[in-house]
Amino acid sequence: MQVSGDFPSRVKIVEVGPRDGLQNISQVLPVETRVALVDKLTEAGLRHIEVGSFVSPKRVPAMADSDKVFKAIKRKPGIIYSALTPNLRGFEDALAAGANEVAVFCSASEGFSRHNINCSIAESINRFNPVIEQAQKAGIPVRGYLSCVMGCPYDGDVPVAQVADLSQALIDIGCYEVSLGDTLGIGTPLQAKAVVTNVAEKVPIAKIAAHFHDTHGQALANLYAVMEEGVAIIDAAVGGLGGCPYAPGASGNVPTEKVLYMLQGMGIKTGVNAQYLKTVVQFVKSYR
Amino acid sequence: MQVSGDFPSRVKIVEVGPRDGLQNISQVLPVETRVALVDKLTEAGLRHIEVGSFVSPKRVPAMADSDKVFKAIKRKPGIIYSALTPNLRGFEDALAAGANEVAVFCSASEGFSRHNINCSIAESINRFNPVIEQAQKAGIPVRGYLSCVMGCPYDGDVPVAQVADLSQALIDIGCYEVSLGDTLGIGTPLQAKAVVTNVAEKVPIAKIAAHFHDTHGQALANLYAVMEEGVAIIDAAVGGLGGCPYAPGASGNVPTEKVLYMLQGMGIKTGVNAQYLKTVVQFVKSYR
Repeated sequence: MQVSGDFPSRVKIVEVGPRDGLQNISQVLPVETRVALVDKLTEAGLRHIEVGSFVSPKRVPAMADSDKVFKAIKRKPGIIYSALTPNLRGFEDALAAGANEVAVFCSASEGFSRHNINCSIAESINRFNPVIEQAQKAGIPVRGYLSCVMGCPYDGDVPVAQVADLSQALIDIGCYEVSLGDTLGIGTPLQAKAVVTNVAEKVPIAKIAAHFHDTHGQALANLYAVMEEGVAIIDAAVGGLGGCPYAPGASGNVPTEKVLYMLQGMGIKTGVNAQYLKTVVQFVKSYR
Repeated sequence: MQVSGDFPSRVKIVEVGPRDGLQNISQVLPVETRVALVDKLTEAGLRHIEVGSFVSPKRVPAMADSDKVFKAIKRKPGIIYSALTPNLRGFEDALAAGANEVAVFCSASEGFSRHNINCSIAESINRFNPVIEQAQKAGIPVRGYLSCVMGCPYDGDVPVAQVADLSQALIDIGCYEVSLGDTLGIGTPLQAKAVVTNVAEKVPIAKIAAHFHDTHGQALANLYAVMEEGVAIIDAAVGGLGGCPYAPGASGNVPTEKVLYMLQGMGIKTGVNAQYLKTVVQFVKSYR
């Protein structure tokens, strides 16, 4: 099967299972299991792996000891091992642990921002400035997450213009790309397309990632729809790990293996070994 | 969200849960449960419900007593209650039971035809002639199913030209529409699109239905892709009931509720009540 139309010939899969996935499942996995997961993902050929989060262990117990995970993983050259770092202290810890990329996190809706990080959207973006400043000094790329782009559990609809403006704001303050999160997994294909086309008016398409959850089984259809618009960066979690404690009813991220199956069937390259990835899925399922 | 491009403004959902779904789950449900399921689907606003199958009860125990199911359901005017009838005896029984539509079933691959119905494709089509002749005399529409259109567990790849020729053959012998089955649930969106565009060269798009299974989670993305080509008839099973005993590894049909969620989000009308359908999903899940 050949690639047709505007589809990308290659897609970058950002594996978010060890962070966005594990932080939201009910049990807390020991460091060695998290290390084993990251190592298996490296073996599977994932080239961008979100390893952990440098946040309060009281607030997110599953991400405690992310520094130990970072220090124990077997790194391969050229692979990005990233960390979520909401503030300067988190960034410094991530840097010390050896993260070679960091990410900041902002909500597209005021309601979710208040409930999730207890401040307004504007305040949350201001907090990133020192992180980005230090990251730039250290030569560490910063990725920006924007959540609730297709709707919010508190505010309901989120205007696409707001999503576009905030995406641009994240790029303007120094993020190298923005990941558009359907945190609730409530979007449908034409909506996903509308969000992306609006954001693409302000941010180059090559800097737009799709981060879709699969609550209503729509994630793959939504990814197909945004790939038609040229999106070539997809966040996914092996085994569909995840959910969101601050987004009631949201289920896991779109499973990496299902994304890979679709991309392979469409003739789109990723560099990921589907056969090996299956063993990682089995590994993940043995811990759920 | 408004409908854009070539998408249909209305989609006919053919609910296949009580037949294609139930015939493939491990337990055999009693007649009263099957009746209750069909009645709930009627209440939910489905306008085309595949109620049962008139085949050997030894071969498909779950479909035994389909006549009793047909006789006990509460019918609403305008709703199609259909039955699978592989041969003349099955057709006569279905007619006596009050089916107001019947369906015949043919494989797009020789290997699956041999394993599933123990004859060649050509022989299977010849067997339909007396069924179709009698159906036409009785004024009963006949639907044609074509299975394994995206690949076969025995033959592997199935040429799209063969799928197109057989689709045309089913229309030529008198089927009013042809339902293209990804029996294994192995297709991906561009493949689904290629199958449909090839079939559409020989059969009007308004007579093409998509019958996709969800083994690798691709069904919704595949449906989106074929709707872009104008397909406006979708087979689905409430709760994702199903599988196929003759197709190792195949999982259930695409869940009706997920199809409906996508269509509603895209502004496509179906006449189905999503809220009520949720209660039918719960009912189905209590029996799995």
